[in-house]
Amino acid sequence: MVDDWLNYPDCKMLENRFVTLLSDFGLSDVYVGVMKGVITQINPRLRVVDLTHQIPPQNITAARFSLINAYPYFPNGTVHVAVVDPGVGSHRRAIAIQLDSGFLVGPDNGLFSGVLSQTKVIAVVELTNPEYWRTSAPSQTFHGRDIFAPVGAHLASGVPLKHLGETIDPTTLAQLELPAMNITAAGITGCIQYIDHFGNLISNIPAAEVQGKTWSVVVGKETILGSLTYSDRQLGELVALVGSHGWVEIAVNGGSAQSRLQLDWGATLEVITNLG
Amino acid sequence: MVDDWLNYPDCKMLENRFVTLLSDFGLSDVYVGVMKGVITQINPRLRVVDLTHQIPPQNITAARFSLINAYPYFPNGTVHVAVVDPGVGSHRRAIAIQLDSGFLVGPDNGLFSGVLSQTKVIAVVELTNPEYWRTSAPSQTFHGRDIFAPVGAHLASGVPLKHLGETIDPTTLAQLELPAMNITAAGITGCIQYIDHFGNLISNIPAAEVQGKTWSVVVGKETILGSLTYSDRQLGELVALVGSHGWVEIAVNGGSAQSRLQLDWGATLEVITNLG
Amino acid sequence: MVDDWLNYPDCKMLENRFVTLLSDFGLSDVYVGVMKGVITQINPRLRVVDLTHQIPPQNITAARFSLINAYPYFPNGTVHVAVVDPGVGSHRRAIAIQLDSGFLVGPDNGLFSGVLSQTKVIAVVELTNPEYWRTSAPSQTFHGRDIFAPVGAHLASGVPLKHLGETIDPTTLAQLELPAMNITAAGITGCIQYIDHFGNLISNIPAAEVQGKTWSVVVGKETILGSLTYSDRQLGELVALVGSHGWVEIAVNGGSAQSRLQLDWGATLEVITNLG
Repeated sequence: MVDDWLNYPDCKMLENRFVTLLSDFGLSDVYVGVMKGVITQINPRLRVVDLTHQIPPQNITAARFSLINAYPYFPNGTVHVAVVDPGVGSHRRAIAIQLDSGFLVGPDNGLFSGVLSQTKVIAVVELTNPEYWRTSAPSQTFHGRDIFAPVGAHLASGVPLKHLGETIDPTTLAQLELPAMNITAAGITGCIQYIDHFGNLISNIPAAEVQGKTWSVVVGKETILGSLTYSDRQLGELVALVGSHGWVEIAVNGGSAQSRLQLDWGATLEVITNLG
Repeated sequence: MVDDWLNYPDCKMLENRFVTLLSDFGLSDVYVGVMKGVITQINPRLRVVDLTHQIPPQNITAARFSLINAYPYFPNGTVHVAVVDPGVGSHRRAIAIQLDSGFLVGPDNGLFSGVLSQTKVIAVVELTNPEYWRTSAPSQTFHGRDIFAPVGAHLASGVPLKHLGETIDPTTLAQLELPAMNITAAGITGCIQYIDHFGNLISNIPAAEVQGKTWSVVVGKETILGSLTYSDRQLGELVALVGSHGWVEIAVNGGSAQSRLQLDWGATLEVITNLG
Repeated sequence: MVDDWLNYPDCKMLENRFVTLLSDFGLSDVYVGVMKGVITQINPRLRVVDLTHQIPPQNITAARFSLINAYPYFPNGTVHVAVVDPGVGSHRRAIAIQLDSGFLVGPDNGLFSGVLSQTKVIAVVELTNPEYWRTSAPSQTFHGRDIFAPVGAHLASGVPLKHLGETIDPTTLAQLELPAMNITAAGITGCIQYIDHFGNLISNIPAAEVQGKTWSVVVGKETILGSLTYSDRQLGELVALVGSHGWVEIAVNGGSAQSRLQLDWGATLEVITNLG
């Protein structure tokens, strides 16, 4: 086990390497703090950034969506460690992926399938080399501490991907099947793929389907006209728009669309374009 | 768009420059993580500190109070980026303010009016120069990512304020009107301007009104004697005191005054001094 | 008051010194951000890591458990500042403790008794020297800002422990009495000492009592077979296992044992080994 950052003498160049953390661990326990401690024990010059730790427990779909939205905004070489891992201790693989502009580390359960669908994969390994784990006898329940955070720290410190384990075929990676968007003559049928803190309902219909058009969202008995921003409607009114993440969303100006419409993850909606 | 930190060669002096973030974005989505990513893409040596991201959605009053309380405790030159922005995408201005000992960046909606009332303003600009935005075509809904965080990062990296846009007159900045404190022969009437995590009810009556006096707070049917600290009362008892922020507050030793008294933001209370 | 980090000219060696923060302050107010600001004002090269700020208000037992679990995972010399402090402003002592591999700073209320029971104590001081406080007139209610964070920052910057105040006898430190584990011929009786974000019920029965044995947990009408990991049971089923922290715990695969069993902190349970 490589547990001493003095093994990274050329740290001068590494003091601005970033590791991001995403999990469903919440912030009330010390699980996240412990992963950060493990990273600093390996290389105290690394910089750790939280993406979020409030993914709903075991919700791989929410984690997948969050990673798509965060990945493009970090420096080249950033290592993203993501631990939403209902299969911890089972036979699911632990993996690290090298992409064009960064790395992904976590369980092979479909978590990364969104980022992978948008980005060139350089190489993938299964994390079979315990030399880069925190201990060669990891716990059965906290691979974030014992495998993923340490591997992420070593990777961000310059360890080549291939040292971490056996190369595997990217086409064998787990995929997360999402409900498809459906384009018909009458309109586009999609679903709510994410609900954010403000109660904004984010669909799986991309901006490209509505840009340059007049469009509305139909959901239940409501028809909501497509607009540019929240304040295009009066306070308290429903508004449909393309969100900052590039998907059609439903919001309430100054309020929560989720509370208003009582819709849940996966609910269906329809977009109608070029009205009238 | 200046997007490469190599434009800041003199980073040696800048590695300890701080950017703080305050928002109502919550911590369950990646919005905050994305703002941090954008900052690190611009200058990875900057240090980011969260003030809070759990301002109640669109509550400018709570954000204003939080900024007053945090501003004095950071090093000179710190840039405070605050995004509670119900008017995003509308015609509200985006601004940056240079003060004696730091900078403020965010929407011009009254958010900063508390800090401004206590501090000397050096200069104010409207953020009209897209060279310092993340993109010259910012989203309509996430100026935190596309304008405020990048501008904050450039400012903390040494870009002069005047490069960021047109100078504007500080007297034109939006003000947030708060209910006034009222001093009469019978006592001082004020209101609850903030309720914290512990359920402490923080009034808008400053310490100076009660210091060196015997005093009580009257609220509903309760008269609560002014004390020095929580443990001056038995566990579970109401206590009035001057909080660490310098305002008269009502608390329960070991409990929540909000739950006990069922009072909400803006509720009125009265302070009586020199009793008996 | 030493308030200028230029007093630490040899900062080159100190840029990787860590201060961790643990509190019951929550994340909705700026209390935690202010403690970080105070630390950066003293020495901007220190690195601050949050353990958690969501300890249930005034719950010293939860804080004690959290510190035990986090302490081993940080670099030598790390300073852990812990502020769960129902007695703030009363006569409880403020203390700093030097251990084999790090430091503890906070109130003397039993918070540290868990770590202390497992670690060699080098020395303890009462924080009586105001030179290392933020102000010689600290508030009565926020010693985290005025005493503990500044003392932690100075300690992490190399100030010797003895400068911080009077040496005190470690045997006089406050202890937190926990319900004892009871070993009888019929089994081991213990209690739930912590409930985490996932609803896992963590007992006070250590791994050593069950390792290498066949064992079950009996709680209410349920008998739950000891297993290695969550996924040894079907989704939604109860499972007993040794958690990553080294204690026997009860979980639900993909769910919450707390919701399922409706048990609270302190509830009793029994472990039976070598069944049948």
